[in-house]
Amino acid sequence: PSKGGTIYRLKECLTHIRTQLDNVVDFWLKHSHDTVHGGFFTCLGKDGHVWMYCRLYRTMGRFCKPEILEAAKTGGEFLRKNARVLGSSNPWKCAFCLTRDGRAVKVQRSIFSECFYIMAMDELSRVTDDKDLQLEAEQMMEQIIYWVRVDSSGLGRPSLPGDVPTNSMAVPMMLLCLVQQLTEGREEAVTQKYKELGNWCVEQILQHIQRGGTAILENVSVNGEELPGCQGRLQNPGHALEAGWFLLQYSAMWGDDNLQKTAINKFVELPYQNGWDKKHGGLFYFLDVDHHCPTQLEWNMKLWWPHCEALIAFLMAYSQTKKPELLERFYQIYEYTFKHFPDNDSGEWYGYLTQEGKVALDFKGGPFKGFFHVPRSLFMCECILTDLLAKHN
Amino acid sequence: PSKGGTIYRLKECLTHIRTQLDNVVDFWLKHSHDTVHGGFFTCLGKDGHVWMYCRLYRTMGRFCKPEILEAAKTGGEFLRKNARVLGSSNPWKCAFCLTRDGRAVKVQRSIFSECFYIMAMDELSRVTDDKDLQLEAEQMMEQIIYWVRVDSSGLGRPSLPGDVPTNSMAVPMMLLCLVQQLTEGREEAVTQKYKELGNWCVEQILQHIQRGGTAILENVSVNGEELPGCQGRLQNPGHALEAGWFLLQYSAMWGDDNLQKTAINKFVELPYQNGWDKKHGGLFYFLDVDHHCPTQLEWNMKLWWPHCEALIAFLMAYSQTKKPELLERFYQIYEYTFKHFPDNDSGEWYGYLTQEGKVALDFKGGPFKGFFHVPRSLFMCECILTDLLAKHN
Repeated sequence: PSKGGTIYRLKECLTHIRTQLDNVVDFWLKHSHDTVHGGFFTCLGKDGHVWMYCRLYRTMGRFCKPEILEAAKTGGEFLRKNARVLGSSNPWKCAFCLTRDGRAVKVQRSIFSECFYIMAMDELSRVTDDKDLQLEAEQMMEQIIYWVRVDSSGLGRPSLPGDVPTNSMAVPMMLLCLVQQLTEGREEAVTQKYKELGNWCVEQILQHIQRGGTAILENVSVNGEELPGCQGRLQNPGHALEAGWFLLQYSAMWGDDNLQKTAINKFVELPYQNGWDKKHGGLFYFLDVDHHCPTQLEWNMKLWWPHCEALIAFLMAYSQTKKPELLERFYQIYEYTFKHFPDNDSGEWYGYLTQEGKVALDFKGGPFKGFFHVPRSLFMCECILTDLLAKHN
Repeated sequence: PSKGGTIYRLKECLTHIRTQLDNVVDFWLKHSHDTVHGGFFTCLGKDGHVWMYCRLYRTMGRFCKPEILEAAKTGGEFLRKNARVLGSSNPWKCAFCLTRDGRAVKVQRSIFSECFYIMAMDELSRVTDDKDLQLEAEQMMEQIIYWVRVDSSGLGRPSLPGDVPTNSMAVPMMLLCLVQQLTEGREEAVTQKYKELGNWCVEQILQHIQRGGTAILENVSVNGEELPGCQGRLQNPGHALEAGWFLLQYSAMWGDDNLQKTAINKFVELPYQNGWDKKHGGLFYFLDVDHHCPTQLEWNMKLWWPHCEALIAFLMAYSQTKKPELLERFYQIYEYTFKHFPDNDSGEWYGYLTQEGKVALDFKGGPFKGFFHVPRSLFMCECILTDLLAKHN
């Protein structure tokens, strides 16, 4: 395509994504706030909400409005007051789900609620310039690092003789995301503090490249070997793509060209190649690398978030390399995503489609879908597109 | 239909079910035995396998064969040796999943692995006339009763301020099943020992009749009131139908006509009315009583086991009452089930269909599908049909 044609199409995308982001923000501002007890309706959403409102307030002029700041601060207060299960044997554990008035309903035996808590606290500290919140985020980070790298017994999962230690993609991926959250734009000392951890995360993520470089497997041994059974054969294309753009960000930060290349070939192109449904379009949720049927009942469904992550991954890969084939992939995912997920009548996106692309679950907010993946994707894509177009002028 | 027509059709069903049962037993005998380490391949299957082989060996002449007994005994030894997590803080907990050589991979914080362990041990004690196994089953039963009725902290789930105690259908249902397992044909003292528990289970199950008798809800408060939120609105038609035939068995044992009537109206008819997919046929996995979308991604799938339970429930209800409308429902479920689930090429049944009835997961054994629901349903239906036809002659 001509340069003019490319620019025209990028501008179209930008306009569309910008409008979508505005609509999505409006939806959540309108529907998800609890003005009685604070906090937000929908479970996991809470920490994601706080992070997202803060990030929008801090970095996009049109969202630098009192109601966004207010939403973030109220949510942050609710979280600080209620998220940590202070009375328990481990006061650093965070609840996955709270009652409306802030009592813990469920605590997971993993690190992910705590990771989202860090994202919320760190981003809120940037908006409010509250050093206490930054300290809270960094202290929680120390606790998570201890659980992951030293001793996980505090998470509450007893060790069992047949349960071999596993390197699950989600863990180093999430930690790398947090390293970027905690260090972005901060003083050199903070960057240095997390440098070794960042490198360790990258190394752990790269261990998931398996089968002679032809597949990203979700779970590998702690030595980076393939695990036996269905757990070892599992592929989660959306996760791999999300890891892909985390790696791209990291490679750009440190000017690591090799890492950029690996990220694009193995964590952007490959999950698309292996994960795209050639018949009906869209990315599968789970796949088995040997083409057996995954044991997850929802394996063939099309979920919103892998598509959100794929949009960011391909657009970022294109913006860093300007390779037209990456832009073509972006368009392909863009077409599928905007044709199938947004609810143009009531706002926001549907989250769960059948393999054929029919809406299977029609709620907008649920235990795992809040104000997070959709606006983060629209926000990231808008930033990248704006940047691309600015450079063209 | 004429009496002759009814008998003809029942005979057809019997012949078909008998053949299916033989095929299913052959499939598992052939494919699931680990001759190296003992035990069976497929996770939860293990205890179900032992129970099922024992029950078939003990009660059906054509399965009273050495290879069935051998399968049951080998499996029982594997379970006795490996299922309980003896080195842990709670040596009565059973593993949900074991490695091939018997090391625990996963222990659930619920009572269900232990319940299946009891079923296996008790039934094996009947086949082998081994009183130690009966004692082991009864001791495990005491432990479960303690967890359910006195103190659940030994299950390993910390109590949280927002997590209200809940009466989940699965618990009293499973305990009622165990009461029947432990008492059937045993001396009066054993029957009396579990009588109060049986009545308590029935009472707990009946608390799930909600909305003025128009719905069975899966989770209610411990006082039998509706719970708020999606957890409280959840319906699981297959579970209700399974509870239905447990109640029918119990009502027959104690000659309780009122309970029989409630079981049929509320736990057999109602879950069918609310749970049957009028458009595509088959029973939904989950439904929301207010017609919202359930949060479970697999809510609209058609699973094998609710259909297995529905076949037993309607046939048992018919055999106890001879009401032709119950037989008509049985035929309807029978048609759907045998049209969609059996794999006539490779044997056994598929377990997971899309809403439209297409196979969505093509494995025969998985983490939740073993040698249990299919053969139990075929076995129960064959027994009831044989009994019905014998009385007609």
